[in-house]
Amino acid sequence: MSDSRPIGIFDSGLGGLTVAKQVMQVLPNEDLIYLGDNARVPYGGRSKEIVTKFSFENAEFLIKQNVKCIVIACNTSSALAGDELKNKLNLPVFDVITPAIDESIKETVNKKVGIIGTRGTVSSGAYGSSIKYQLSNINVFSKACPLFVPFIEEGESSSPALKMVAKNYIKELKDAEIDTLILGCTHYPMIRHLIEEEVGNNVQIIDPGITVAKTLQEYLEKNNLLNLSNTSGSRKYFVTDYTERFIKVAEMFLGHKIEHNLEKALL
Amino acid sequence: MSDSRPIGIFDSGLGGLTVAKQVMQVLPNEDLIYLGDNARVPYGGRSKEIVTKFSFENAEFLIKQNVKCIVIACNTSSALAGDELKNKLNLPVFDVITPAIDESIKETVNKKVGIIGTRGTVSSGAYGSSIKYQLSNINVFSKACPLFVPFIEEGESSSPALKMVAKNYIKELKDAEIDTLILGCTHYPMIRHLIEEEVGNNVQIIDPGITVAKTLQEYLEKNNLLNLSNTSGSRKYFVTDYTERFIKVAEMFLGHKIEHNLEKALL
Repeated sequence: MSDSRPIGIFDSGLGGLTVAKQVMQVLPNEDLIYLGDNARVPYGGRSKEIVTKFSFENAEFLIKQNVKCIVIACNTSSALAGDELKNKLNLPVFDVITPAIDESIKETVNKKVGIIGTRGTVSSGAYGSSIKYQLSNINVFSKACPLFVPFIEEGESSSPALKMVAKNYIKELKDAEIDTLILGCTHYPMIRHLIEEEVGNNVQIIDPGITVAKTLQEYLEKNNLLNLSNTSGSRKYFVTDYTERFIKVAEMFLGHKIEHNLEKALL
Repeated sequence: MSDSRPIGIFDSGLGGLTVAKQVMQVLPNEDLIYLGDNARVPYGGRSKEIVTKFSFENAEFLIKQNVKCIVIACNTSSALAGDELKNKLNLPVFDVITPAIDESIKETVNKKVGIIGTRGTVSSGAYGSSIKYQLSNINVFSKACPLFVPFIEEGESSSPALKMVAKNYIKELKDAEIDTLILGCTHYPMIRHLIEEEVGNNVQIIDPGITVAKTLQEYLEKNNLLNLSNTSGSRKYFVTDYTERFIKVAEMFLGHKIEHNLEKALL
């Protein structure tokens, strides 16, 4: 048995392309449809109510494209709307948070796990409370890093000002002596080098894009839902707003050109 | 003759409150309705098409509230959608850009005018081309400062990292020897001190919030549209998304509490 329908991935904007990249690496033969809601990006500081509304609109767009499952690539959306999407939609939905939490519980030795993300993700407490729910003896230290995204989107991934900002953000986590750190925002893999430098070599970094891609692969295999084609899957990118700059940022995240596979989506 | 209907002001988010503040100062007896589209903020990097769509939705909301005129407090919206709103709406519409341009032409002695703003405002060329249109012998130097807004919204208006960012942005304008600088983004009056410090004392700063408030006052006087009441005007604030943090940021911009005058707007 197999299922040749595409995998749907959505994000508030283009950061989720770092997740899409991991999915393509693990499942190269799968067709993939990506939706970036960049007309309304960022979701980071918005309310649960509005993030849920936007997330359902994104999911419904993907369902109309006949996807077999949905990956919520956005941490804020996973945190604030993930459960409701899973409960109400009639297809498998994967959030980026759950697999990263499982991985962090496996990895930590001293039971001190750090999480960095947008203000929305961190203040939702989604990472922290899920970890606690599974293993109450783990101490969770979370820190909102709201200035990381604008710096990354400006292509300033190694500017001295960003280093200064990073040092301030990471200090608390270092002082707390975490041994595992979850990159709780899809943009952060782009500055992994800088975060690693600040947090030190002895801290295990978890990239939720990598862990969700593995989880998705296992699920499709187990449920006979893989696309068994022998050729590379097709990729289609939808955005809710289109500017040349968005394309540039998208290609920075993916590491390759996408212009010919890009279309405007009306939600 | 008089007109007791409220003045409508909209912005992509809360930055426009710095404009509302100036309007309230100049026209204290006028009723005022403010709409901040913070569910979709920022407009800064978005396309002309999507900014125009959002701007019309905002204007229509205000028209339903029976306003006598509309002030577009958002520079991006003024730049990308200002003309279309003025042409298509059946009430007076004021953008923040036009009065600031007139003022800069009056102020500059060496005919070198600088403009700082979001990426959208600057790349639209709205400020520069309007100045050129009026006086072709003026040299316009514009610089997008996309990291200013996130720093300001984080309340980090005097952090060392922001100073470093500002120094980089302002350098080009200093080198160009401008004698007049337009703060082409509603957030920037919040860091006026820091900008002044970087650009030097001999540069005249123009705050479009102040100039549009004066223009509006003159218009209402001239056309007998003032509210002639002797009491302080009422203020009503609408937002398209509501979080505690938004309120905090709003109060930072206004300098006083607004909670009891705040309502959620459904566009």
